[in-house]
Amino acid sequence: MSQPIEFFFDFSSPYAYLASHKIDALAAKHGREVDWKPVLLGAIFKLTGMAPLTQIPMKGDYMRHDFPRMARLFDVPVTFPDPFPFSSIHAVRTIYWLKDGDPKAANALSRTLINAAFNGRDIIKAESVAAIAGENGIDPAALLAAIETPEVKEKTKAANDAAIALGVFGAPYIVVDGEPFWGADRLDQVDRWLETGGW
Amino acid sequence: MSQPIEFFFDFSSPYAYLASHKIDALAAKHGREVDWKPVLLGAIFKLTGMAPLTQIPMKGDYMRHDFPRMARLFDVPVTFPDPFPFSSIHAVRTIYWLKDGDPKAANALSRTLINAAFNGRDIIKAESVAAIAGENGIDPAALLAAIETPEVKEKTKAANDAAIALGVFGAPYIVVDGEPFWGADRLDQVDRWLETGGW
Repeated sequence: MSQPIEFFFDFSSPYAYLASHKIDALAAKHGREVDWKPVLLGAIFKLTGMAPLTQIPMKGDYMRHDFPRMARLFDVPVTFPDPFPFSSIHAVRTIYWLKDGDPKAANALSRTLINAAFNGRDIIKAESVAAIAGENGIDPAALLAAIETPEVKEKTKAANDAAIALGVFGAPYIVVDGEPFWGADRLDQVDRWLETGGW
Repeated sequence: MSQPIEFFFDFSSPYAYLASHKIDALAAKHGREVDWKPVLLGAIFKLTGMAPLTQIPMKGDYMRHDFPRMARLFDVPVTFPDPFPFSSIHAVRTIYWLKDGDPKAANALSRTLINAAFNGRDIIKAESVAAIAGENGIDPAALLAAIETPEVKEKTKAANDAAIALGVFGAPYIVVDGEPFWGADRLDQVDRWLETGGW
């Protein structure tokens, strides 16, 4: 099988949430898997000087109109997170803790957690993440202990640094065989690239 | 006939250039016309704190890869402007000078000027704009005189202020019956909105 599609996302990125509903089916259509890679955009924005969409004058207003409109187009339910953006450090650490031992479980929990975040559940608190993981067969106590270890913290930082080195400046950021596509509105181009191998 | 599609663009916006190759045919498909409305994004960026794409770390690198890739996909020739971004104040004033008397000529010259800018010609200097206008049947001397009048300067400022009031923060920014769409990657949504009247 070809290498997986890298799906970089932030748990609090609205457009990554939309893309998260499409990416697995899109990959499967082309016989690919998806490697779900959460990032911490807050840290990345410090490097680029960018800001969360809602905080940018005018652009924030557009986003507040465009995002629900695009959610309707994607037929995806939304309860917009409050607060927004929110810290997803515990969620991200959880994924990188799981990833080495059970990458499939890590992907599935990524999907579950971003869905939870945009459907009225808290994923900020470590306990909230642990509760959701627990509903999905992961030991909450082991999780809560693991995400406070230096090893998992270091893995999380290394993953974010690797994403930065690759050029991930926003989300969703989708890499197909080294080719980067930014934005939920580029899924058609991802589809085409997978189909044709480039243009 | 329904009201025209408003096509807000900056003469130095790469993605507006790409969209400029599609917008007339897209409108015509739905029995619509296009009202080409140049803006001065530099002035707007001062309000939003945004910056030209190429000046944003990481995002600039992505854009330098994505823009030529998208130009190939759109099958549109490009010679990237140097300097970039560039001042299009003379071009913009020219359009608002023409617009009242001959809106069709203003639209046609908008198309011609953004094409010139992305195909190796200068449109920064008033004389360059006048020369290109001259090739298209517009009196260069009248143009050069007009764009220095307080009346045309005021019209240009009023047009930019009106765009800002409407929420135009980037380009291309396409308004269909009051509904805004930002970005060359949203032309499919514009198409769908025109087809269905919304979703």
